[in-house]
Amino acid sequence: MDNIKSYVQQHKDRFINELIELLKIPSVSADSAYSQDVIDTSEAVKASLEKAGCDYVEICDTPGYPIVYGEKIIDKNLPTVLVYGHYDVQPPDPLDLWTSPPFEPVIKKTDIHPEGAIFARGACDDKGQMYMHVKALEYMVQSSTLPCNVKFMIEGEEEVGSKSLGWFVEKNHEKLKCDVILISDTGMISNQQPSITTGLRGLSYVEVEVTGPNRDLHSGLYGGTVANPINVLAKMIASLHDEDNHITIPGFYDNVEELTAEERAEMAKAPFNLDNYKKALDLNDIYGEKGYVTNERNSIRPTLDVNGIWGGYTGEGAKTVIASKAYAKISMRLVPHQDWEEITELFTKHFESIAPSGVTVKVKPHHGGQGYVTPIDSIGYQAAAKAYEESFGVKPIPVRSGGSIPIVALFEKELKSKTIMMGFGLDSDAIHSPNEHFGIFNYLKGIETIPLFYKHFVELSK
Amino acid sequence: MDNIKSYVQQHKDRFINELIELLKIPSVSADSAYSQDVIDTSEAVKASLEKAGCDYVEICDTPGYPIVYGEKIIDKNLPTVLVYGHYDVQPPDPLDLWTSPPFEPVIKKTDIHPEGAIFARGACDDKGQMYMHVKALEYMVQSSTLPCNVKFMIEGEEEVGSKSLGWFVEKNHEKLKCDVILISDTGMISNQQPSITTGLRGLSYVEVEVTGPNRDLHSGLYGGTVANPINVLAKMIASLHDEDNHITIPGFYDNVEELTAEERAEMAKAPFNLDNYKKALDLNDIYGEKGYVTNERNSIRPTLDVNGIWGGYTGEGAKTVIASKAYAKISMRLVPHQDWEEITELFTKHFESIAPSGVTVKVKPHHGGQGYVTPIDSIGYQAAAKAYEESFGVKPIPVRSGGSIPIVALFEKELKSKTIMMGFGLDSDAIHSPNEHFGIFNYLKGIETIPLFYKHFVELSK
Repeated sequence: MDNIKSYVQQHKDRFINELIELLKIPSVSADSAYSQDVIDTSEAVKASLEKAGCDYVEICDTPGYPIVYGEKIIDKNLPTVLVYGHYDVQPPDPLDLWTSPPFEPVIKKTDIHPEGAIFARGACDDKGQMYMHVKALEYMVQSSTLPCNVKFMIEGEEEVGSKSLGWFVEKNHEKLKCDVILISDTGMISNQQPSITTGLRGLSYVEVEVTGPNRDLHSGLYGGTVANPINVLAKMIASLHDEDNHITIPGFYDNVEELTAEERAEMAKAPFNLDNYKKALDLNDIYGEKGYVTNERNSIRPTLDVNGIWGGYTGEGAKTVIASKAYAKISMRLVPHQDWEEITELFTKHFESIAPSGVTVKVKPHHGGQGYVTPIDSIGYQAAAKAYEESFGVKPIPVRSGGSIPIVALFEKELKSKTIMMGFGLDSDAIHSPNEHFGIFNYLKGIETIPLFYKHFVELSK
Repeated sequence: MDNIKSYVQQHKDRFINELIELLKIPSVSADSAYSQDVIDTSEAVKASLEKAGCDYVEICDTPGYPIVYGEKIIDKNLPTVLVYGHYDVQPPDPLDLWTSPPFEPVIKKTDIHPEGAIFARGACDDKGQMYMHVKALEYMVQSSTLPCNVKFMIEGEEEVGSKSLGWFVEKNHEKLKCDVILISDTGMISNQQPSITTGLRGLSYVEVEVTGPNRDLHSGLYGGTVANPINVLAKMIASLHDEDNHITIPGFYDNVEELTAEERAEMAKAPFNLDNYKKALDLNDIYGEKGYVTNERNSIRPTLDVNGIWGGYTGEGAKTVIASKAYAKISMRLVPHQDWEEITELFTKHFESIAPSGVTVKVKPHHGGQGYVTPIDSIGYQAAAKAYEESFGVKPIPVRSGGSIPIVALFEKELKSKTIMMGFGLDSDAIHSPNEHFGIFNYLKGIETIPLFYKHFVELSK
């Protein structure tokens, strides 16, 4: 423990600068304009794994962006840890809300991060958290304390639904064989109270298109005589929730697991202050499904949100037009046992069925993934819990996250291994938002904690 | 009549080429990127009026884009016709739907226009129709048949609500003094059945902004716990119409005049084929206010249409975000007796009142104007009817248009003059849409018909 602490102290400036270099490459997988940058980032990740001490690193081609695979096998008879992460990032827009350019990382102090935080797109999600594992490996190799085999699988399509990962995993069962999968792509409660994510929501992401007249029309000459695709889309979206904010898609809740009063009481123990929550978002009130509290609404309950909407004239000034088409991107967060493909079908069937005559509707499924729950009695969870307790001096709390890492369910199915989600980010890190950042404390603490997981995992596996 | 016909035949190529030159200047008043082009267009209009025979032409500065004023006074004791038109045009987007660039005019034949039509933004609305009056003046001056005084007032802000026109008209009562106002900014039923627009709808155009959280949020971590501004905006827009497509804003219909069964029977006489109407728009069905037919829904009934909507991630691919803000541009078409400023207030009050807690709502009025009706027993209408009958060989039908020319009501109030709307365009000309065009037949027929209006107006005024 002391060795790793002093090693991190000694090398922290280099650790920070190496991450900053990685953050400068705009690896936005959702926008093809950045495709070369995504490729360049995979090369940079490969180089960093070689430098950290992997015996073998390869850039694996896929139908989409490449997957970087690396390994250090010290003894076939020892356990193997498979580290998963992603080197692609969310689109940075809206750019005008960033206080510094998203791909020009800067270190700024904040109330929560008095030691400073790195501000850049991907600082936390997931370049920063992924890179902690690279630096932890460097330490274990340099100090000859690596207690088992390690494999890395770092992909470049996580922010667009890991399109090629399933294809890759199915083809490489042998290569990816492992005893546990380790991911840092989630958060923890606070720097004083670590937590381990034991549950994730699934996701179904679709794009809808409503078409009315075959061309844009003058709203004076045609206003009132034809279905306006934007008005219709608004009506259709509005109808997807009832007045209690329940989702109205028939069959949507069929497989949703209702937690017991005891389980809900357990959840309620996690520290939460509603006033601070509202204050942090400048909200006069919260909003959500009747019968559940905030911590339940974003973890054990499914949701439906419009992530983007557009149609008609959106430029400067005014244009009196009835648009020919209107569009929306809609995503549903799902809970364990809700099958994302089935939900996507239910949505499509329902959305098409509520289209009024006078318009035609298309639903295009984008991507999705299943929810997941990690048993807290597993060796992997126990090892992670010990690691956090040793490095933070506080027992971590198991929590269900509202986010989705669809591939976790895929790993269990294909590789028959449990996944442990050791997150070191904070909700306030603004991932997916302008001014995303990652605390220096969190970054270095992660590097310190990961080797402890290896140690305890190998011991508990004996 | 024969003289004007032969003059048009002799000069038609020049008439067409002069209009094409004018159409090449992208005078988009809604987008400040085109401001110099708008200015350049006012200069071109000034030059064309001087060339046509005005004794005096001036470019009048306003708080916005300039107004071109021109006049030819032959005898103070004779009646004066004031011609109004506008040299600005609608934004051309969506550009990808144009079959030829909007500001590179080309002549193409269509089923409705076997002699060809000029395709360009502004070809009909209103450069083409405005320029007919310039060429008609040229003929009357060249043939010494101008029977009265003529004044021109050509503005550059009609497509953005004629912001400066009221200011200008109030300041220039004496300069603009006239006996009748002549406008060609409307359409007619068909090239075989001319019509004169006797009614116009008013307009109230607003922009709304819904704000939720103070930043874009990750839809996994916050999905279900905060009001999503896009979902809320959709619900609010949806609530503005009931299931019969009546508008739900309290007081909205208070001043709407209900037409008598006789009046509605008169209106029903205008030729209309619903199947062709649907076919022309590729619609499987029409849509609109219960209790009224298509020709009533777009003329004697008020409407509410969303002209544009935007919020969240609208780029390529997927982004799981809850947007901080969502926006919409909404316009209401009003009928005579509905005061646009009062309606704008009613909308604002209502829209703010239906905002759920968890969001804040801003309503920004853009512009508006009153509806208008021209009495068909006025000298002006009678002169126009005779002119059409003489040049088309068919009696014109009086019709109410769904469009708005807010300044017509303004003129009556400020200048105490009636306005006659002699339109020569067709609904199929796609004004405000991609591939706007104006038939060569219509353009030349307009030039032939206008001098006949002058002749009959002076005779009937004796």
